[in-house]
Formats: sequence, C-alpha cells, structure tokens
Amino acid sequence: MSIAALLAATLAPVMSVQAAPAAAPPPRPYDALPGDWVAIPDDELLVFTLASGRRFVVRLAPMRYTPVHVDNIRKLARAGWWDGETVYRVQDNYVAQWGDATEKKALPANVVANPPAEYVWPVFDAVTTLSKADPYASRAGYSRDGWPVATNGREAWIPHCYAMVGVARDLAPSTGSGSDLYANIGHAPRHLDRNIAIVGRVIDGIDALSTLPRGTGGGLGLYEDAKQYVPIATARLVSDLPAAERPRYQYRTTEGPRFAAWIKSRENREPPFFTVPAGGADICNAMPPVRKAP
Amino acid sequence: MSIAALLAATLAPVMSVQAAPAAAPPPRPYDALPGDWVAIPDDELLVFTLASGRRFVVRLAPMRYTPVHVDNIRKLARAGWWDGETVYRVQDNYVAQWGDATEKKALPANVVANPPAEYVWPVFDAVTTLSKADPYASRAGYSRDGWPVATNGREAWIPHCYAMVGVARDLAPSTGSGSDLYANIGHAPRHLDRNIAIVGRVIDGIDALSTLPRGTGGGLGLYEDAKQYVPIATARLVSDLPAAERPRYQYRTTEGPRFAAWIKSRENREPPFFTVPAGGADICNAMPPVRKAP
Repeated sequence: MSIAALLAATLAPVMSVQAAPAAAPPPRPYDALPGDWVAIPDDELLVFTLASGRRFVVRLAPMRYTPVHVDNIRKLARAGWWDGETVYRVQDNYVAQWGDATEKKALPANVVANPPAEYVWPVFDAVTTLSKADPYASRAGYSRDGWPVATNGREAWIPHCYAMVGVARDLAPSTGSGSDLYANIGHAPRHLDRNIAIVGRVIDGIDALSTLPRGTGGGLGLYEDAKQYVPIATARLVSDLPAAERPRYQYRTTEGPRFAAWIKSRENREPPFFTVPAGGADICNAMPPVRKAP
Repeated sequence: MSIAALLAATLAPVMSVQAAPAAAPPPRPYDALPGDWVAIPDDELLVFTLASGRRFVVRLAPMRYTPVHVDNIRKLARAGWWDGETVYRVQDNYVAQWGDATEKKALPANVVANPPAEYVWPVFDAVTTLSKADPYASRAGYSRDGWPVATNGREAWIPHCYAMVGVARDLAPSTGSGSDLYANIGHAPRHLDRNIAIVGRVIDGIDALSTLPRGTGGGLGLYEDAKQYVPIATARLVSDLPAAERPRYQYRTTEGPRFAAWIKSRENREPPFFTVPAGGADICNAMPPVRKAP
C-alpha cells in the first residue's frame, strides 16, 4: 500500500484527538474553522496517570445525563481514591477496567454507594442526527456540547462506542458507585446500552489502555496474578491542577452547515480512496470530534 | 465489580475462539452440542509467527468469494514471501497492517499483481440472518460455512468486523495483490465494505496484533522508525505443516434450532446481568463462533 493510498485511507480514522493542522490548504465544506472549536471545561477533564508515566484523559459526561455517578467520580478523584489502585482487567475486543481489584477499599463518606440507575433519560437532545437507524437505536446524533446520543423514541442514552467510559457494576439493583470504571477498547458493545451508566469518554491516550496485555482469567481478561496489575499513580481533575499544568481540550460544535457536511462526509467517504459510498454510518464510526487545544 | 458480575457480563465477549467447556452444566437452548462443530480445512488456515514467538491464525475466506486474492495469498505463503517481512503500521481503533514496508519486494511470478475487484458478489448465501438492518446493509447473517455476510439486496459481501483481514491497496484501479494485509483492531470500519477485498479472519491470537504499540506516522499509525517494525518469522498454511504440528480449528454450524437460539441470545442478552434486551444486534457483535478443536 503506497503512502498516497494510506493518506487517502486516513479519511477513515476513528480516533478523535486530532493534531493541529500543519499547513493551510483551502478548507473543504466539512472542515472545522477555528471558531468551531469550543473549550472543554476544566472540571469535565479527569487525567489518569499510570505509574509507567503514560496518561489517559477522560472527559466526564454532562451532569444532565448521569449526575450522581459523575458527582461521585469527582469526589473520588478529589479524595485521591484511585491513587495506587490498578488496571486489573483487559479483555480483547471488549474493555479495560480499573479501580480496586480487591473490592475491599472503603469509599469516601460523601460518595453515594449505589446511585440511581442513570442509564437513560427522557430527552433526546441531539441537535444534528445521522441519516439511518442502527440495530440498537431508531436515531442517533450529537448533543450541542459534543456528545453522541441515541434514542428509541421513548428514552435517550449515550451509546457504548470505542473509548467510552462506563461504570462497572454488580448484578442489579447494583448500579456501581463509579469507583470501578472501564473503557471500551474494541467493537462497540452496544448491547450494554441502557444497562450501564456511561460517564465519560477517553479523549486522549486511549492507547495507554488498548495496548495493555490481555488478561487470561475467567474468559474475562482478568489479570490472574496481581503482579500483572497495572498501577495507577494518580487521577486528578484538571480543575484541581495548578493553572500552568492544565492540559486543554476542545470539542467541535455540532451545529451549523460545516458540521452537517461533516456528517455527510462520514456517511459517504470520499474518493479517490473510497469508490463506493456507504450511504450511512453508525454513530461509533462518526464520533464527535475532540482535539487538544492548539 | 464482583467476580459474579464479571461472569454474568461475560455473556458479552466478542472474541471468537472459545475454550472447551470445563465441566458439563445442562446445555441451554443456544449452546452448541459437540456435533455442531465442523473442522476447518487445513488449507484454509494460515499461521503467522512473529519473531517474538507470538502467533496469529487467519482462516482464509472461501474461494467462492475472493478466489484470485485468496489464491495469491496461498502462493505467497508457499513462496515464504512474508518470512522476514514486518508489521509496519498499527493505528489505534483501526488496523494493524503487515507485508513489505518498502513496497519494493518482487512478487512470486505466479501471483496476480492486480486481481479483479473481488469486493462484492451477486449471491447473498446466508442460511440464517439477524433480525435488523444496520446502517451499512439491509440484511446480515451467516453462510453455511461460518462466515458473516451482508447484503443491500443487490449484492453481497463480507463485512469489516473486528479481526477480519483485508487486502491493503493503492488507489483504484489497484485492488492489492494480497501481499500487504491488515486486520481490524477496533470498531468495525464498515465504510470499507465494498471498497476492499476481505480475505480472511483472525480466529486465534488477534492480541498479538491488537496489543502492539501504536505508530505515530502520518496520523495513520505508521511506525516512523524501521526499528519499530515488528518482524514476521514465518507464514505457513497449516496444510503445508507436518501432520503432527497442525493446529486444528472448528466453526459452529450456522443452521438448526440451536444456532437460531444463539442469534436470539446475541440480540437479547440474558438476565441477570442484562436488565434491558437490545432487541437486535449488529453482525460484528454476533460473530459466528469459531474455536480451537478440543
């Protein structure tokens, strides 16, 4: 495959964090202009730093979706609860999961041990939508603040796409406190939609999780030997970092003609590499763009 | 998350190679019985062994789908063409790609440099189907010999699911010889359907590819330094190995009431872990089962 073809094929990458443009070719109808990028608030950004030095950054879901779970997660971060805990499960084509492998560590007193089941909500607040249904939702699209959302016409939810972060839970009525989290590292396990609270999205550094050795325990990717656990050094809200140390990220506005054109470009990938347009896309192949602030 | 919950959640794993059952609980309606497993012919199995000793096994697609590309691949294996070549591209949530990074190595004389565009065929030969359309296909299901297939009512193809193997190509009219291959290691890039020849599926050892460090070149996951290339020791058809060294794999029959029940179980995951059934599945979350022969 030539480099030219590889470059053409890059119309297809799905990972969201984009480098700042190098030169300045004339913008295409679907390209974002500088004013299309909006700063992500510092208190929506949670930075996990592994003992190896590798980091991954989670954007927390808006409070209108999963208020109690996300509030818990902020409190856990502020308590330093994850510091010294581990990634203890990595199952190929499924999830990487972290928290307290022993299930014995006490939660901070202000954390709600079993929040409401914040899996769905009544308002499908997409401002733009994809053209086709998928097997899991009658419609899917994008919230004003850059989140993928899906609906069945009665209720709405955030879909389980690659790099989305969910709350591990026990059998119902457990909903999970948020202390144990997972990120999707394979094909979107959409059957988990409406069954689990989605609380965020890894917007940078997902490969710190996706490249970890797969575990062999129980057919579930559990690390069988505690020596395999991948230690977490710290988890910090960016709003709790000194101003000079704060990484900055932006989401692309999901309104306006350029974003509408972007959706079309995802549904019908461009020649010359693509010779047959799909005529549609699933939301997990058209994730709302996010980038490091240039 | 308790081990009980993890075990419940394992109804969701997507990787295909299943260990032989340990004890013998009473079979559920969707469980395969021993006679439901069919041997995969030795000449459909291609074993790649990395210099590290790690292996991954590709089941080659049936000749009725992509005859010239698959014939090329058998010839390349028999010529030892991949021995000493490398994995040179690993793009997160997209593909791992291998072959000749220099694009200069001559093909064996009996290999067709630019086969026909074997991307679609007229016969949708599914013997069982899923209940819902997806954004890329009006129907999807399973061939008699255990392949996922999709259709738009006019033509059929093998969908780009996790671990499927495709032929890297240059811009059209190039179709790729089959010397450079990629495996999907993230969310199914279904927009590639009908644009590229799918020639196989990694049925064992995909984590030898999915855990490789991601490349940083060109936004495409290219390894920028040749020292990063991951060397391939050998690629061998199982039919060319001594009988005693041949690994054996099986696919599950895709016909009969137990497989129909299995599809239903994929479309509606079971309590107690799942509290809300999806009512449908996409083909890449319901990949036809394959296993190592017990």
